[in-house]
Amino acid sequence: MQFSSALLENAVNEFAKLPGIGKKTALRLVLHLLKQNTSEVQHFSEVIAKMRSEIKFCQRCFNVADADICSICSNSMRKQEIICVVENIRDVIAIESTQQYNGTYHVLGGVISPLDGIGPDQLNIESLVSRIQKEKTEELIFALNPTIQGDTTIYYIQKKLQPYHLRITTIARGIAFGGELEYADEMTLARSLQNRLPVESYVANK
Amino acid sequence: MQFSSALLENAVNEFAKLPGIGKKTALRLVLHLLKQNTSEVQHFSEVIAKMRSEIKFCQRCFNVADADICSICSNSMRKQEIICVVENIRDVIAIESTQQYNGTYHVLGGVISPLDGIGPDQLNIESLVSRIQKEKTEELIFALNPTIQGDTTIYYIQKKLQPYHLRITTIARGIAFGGELEYADEMTLARSLQNRLPVESYVANK
Repeated sequence: MQFSSALLENAVNEFAKLPGIGKKTALRLVLHLLKQNTSEVQHFSEVIAKMRSEIKFCQRCFNVADADICSICSNSMRKQEIICVVENIRDVIAIESTQQYNGTYHVLGGVISPLDGIGPDQLNIESLVSRIQKEKTEELIFALNPTIQGDTTIYYIQKKLQPYHLRITTIARGIAFGGELEYADEMTLARSLQNRLPVESYVANK
Repeated sequence: MQFSSALLENAVNEFAKLPGIGKKTALRLVLHLLKQNTSEVQHFSEVIAKMRSEIKFCQRCFNVADADICSICSNSMRKQEIICVVENIRDVIAIESTQQYNGTYHVLGGVISPLDGIGPDQLNIESLVSRIQKEKTEELIFALNPTIQGDTTIYYIQKKLQPYHLRITTIARGIAFGGELEYADEMTLARSLQNRLPVESYVANK
């Protein structure tokens, strides 16, 4: 692409560095910003810079936070004795959006994946163990993606936590709502058969 | 979507204001920026703000420019007596990318479209006429999209320029390279028959 303005070109190049944004999309975004008031674009740019420089990670659960402790950990209305273990912040947002969970989180920052060079030491696992030692945790819920890496991580953490005698669960695997049996993979279908529910509890949850 | 950080939420909302960027994509972009160094995100934000506050529009052709006159108008290697009339900056970039055009441009800023409330007065048409009065223009090439609005604009401008006896052309309409005859619309096919080319000139251009 040929630009007659270096200012425009630099802005397009910056946007094109973002994931999933190519040069054409970047140009579209920049031309959109060019149509806005200078003050609005100034605001856009300040909010982004401020987010990066001021955001913190909760010292207890490693979720994003505006202070040293995130708003979930500091909320006395939530059950502090239940911990949901997730891979990343996106998963926290997904679970929060269901409005069905009223405990706390622990963000691992990834899953154990030797092929990608990610071992237990790179993840927030030690901090989870010491958190359970210090706090009166009653239940640990694993909400990890159903992959080999996710299952390995569950196995590793569960082994480490054996001395502490707490209830450890994982979110249910099964046929998704709106999914069709005939297109479900064998693994999912097999697991959903193994973990079948009494109809009464299914109907009650509806 | 539920966020546990207002800083994160504000940044996602700012990104989601951009065209074609929904909340989920915005979150993906913000989480990507969160992984970058603070200095890189600072640079991103500064480049965007600087682009908006410092960019100018060329006083001669209304293309984006870093100075009062754009780099195309101030380039003495380009044929200043040929003007290519385009709708917007994106079209300038598209034509420049072909590296086949060595004249100047005139950016209208839109096309005449009464339904959208855009009349000739809102477009840079008067400035085009006065530019032709002042300069020794030899040829005017219309490179507008082949729509009713584009054709109306061509007709209007061409009427206005009748007193000045210059060569007025429009880019060729026809079957696109890689296009198939059977899927072309009747209008395009009819026009490409009317404006058929001698095979010699076609082969020479190959």
